[in-house]
Amino acid sequence: MSEIQNLIDKLIEFRDARDWQQFHDSKNLASAISIEASELNELYLWKNDIKEIESIDKERLAEELADILSFALLLVEKNKLDVTEIVLNKIKKNNEKYPVSKAKGTAKKYNEL
Amino acid sequence: MSEIQNLIDKLIEFRDARDWQQFHDSKNLASAISIEASELNELYLWKNDIKEIESIDKERLAEELADILSFALLLVEKNKLDVTEIVLNKIKKNNEKYPVSKAKGTAKKYNEL
Amino acid sequence: MSEIQNLIDKLIEFRDARDWQQFHDSKNLASAISIEASELNELYLWKNDIKEIESIDKERLAEELADILSFALLLVEKNKLDVTEIVLNKIKKNNEKYPVSKAKGTAKKYNEL
Amino acid sequence: MSEIQNLIDKLIEFRDARDWQQFHDSKNLASAISIEASELNELYLWKNDIKEIESIDKERLAEELADILSFALLLVEKNKLDVTEIVLNKIKKNNEKYPVSKAKGTAKKYNEL
Repeated sequence: MSEIQNLIDKLIEFRDARDWQQFHDSKNLASAISIEASELNELYLWKNDIKEIESIDKERLAEELADILSFALLLVEKNKLDVTEIVLNKIKKNNEKYPVSKAKGTAKKYNEL
Repeated sequence: MSEIQNLIDKLIEFRDARDWQQFHDSKNLASAISIEASELNELYLWKNDIKEIESIDKERLAEELADILSFALLLVEKNKLDVTEIVLNKIKKNNEKYPVSKAKGTAKKYNEL
Repeated sequence: MSEIQNLIDKLIEFRDARDWQQFHDSKNLASAISIEASELNELYLWKNDIKEIESIDKERLAEELADILSFALLLVEKNKLDVTEIVLNKIKKNNEKYPVSKAKGTAKKYNEL
Repeated sequence: MSEIQNLIDKLIEFRDARDWQQFHDSKNLASAISIEASELNELYLWKNDIKEIESIDKERLAEELADILSFALLLVEKNKLDVTEIVLNKIKKNNEKYPVSKAKGTAKKYNEL
């Protein structure tokens, strides 16, 4: 079995053992991703020194990233999407929005290139 | 090669072709995840009807989820973490924080159980 | 003195007593607003029943809103903006983006009207 | 009339002319604040140079801040709170959580002081 499907299965198993599917509509899952993303950002808040930024506690970082990924995978599953397909599609789209010739070395948004 | 590693490789390839590694410190990647998560939430804003919520445009949903997953994978890679490991670890931790006996059928936070 | 200026003065006083101005660049203040906004959203997470939504703990709501407003006021002050002016200007702009004739009774975004 | 009440009145007038009160439950207003906060953060994304950070377009900054403040004021009004009261209360609470003697010159969270 694919490793992504394996993770989704484990997340579903955890969810269903608690009867939580009733709470997991797409809107609440999207909100959960955003809330977890903010907890991730809190690890970096007020830090500007790159060494400090890149040496934050790896366990807390791992946990916040895991929370984000977990809710994202649950939303993927809920909407019958496929992680590999949607990420590769987005890369293809971004290849058009951000052609190397224009985007190289600049952090500008595509509509400002 | 694993499918997750394959996605990460593709994302790195896209990034490096544009010389964007210089912008991708962990703090900015975390901020990018949060910004993309809000774009996802915007799809659901002002909608309360469950049928409307579950029938939003699948292509836009796929794109926003792909953006979130992409920046999350780049942050995973940047910090030499492993997706499968951190997600399974978090499930294990949540098994302790949310024992089935207490958490079944309730959306309360662990500190309110 | 104006009540908004009074609040800003009190926030500055609190900040300066702790020598925190050094951390309060505009980027970190913006991140702080977003993090506090997520804490606010967490109060509503997994809740869909309108009665439950409108009866959450008022003290926690007040605290999260105060955090958001405080960092927003500090960012206003940092950038020498004026709350009344920017809010009234935005209302004027939104009056053009969302003319009553088109926007009445619909939650669509201006570019979908 | 107080300047804050004046802003709230103008926001209510704008809202009611469009019959938007029906969409403005507290959960959606909280989500709107978070979404606008991310648009604010997007202005700073990928920027680390303090001069660049402090010289972003003041008009866009003003608009994003106005959006955040507007939805925050609408949520304040919806829940019959008072801006001055909740901000001053939070400052008082933070005075206890972050005593000057411990918090001076450090960006640590209260539970790490």
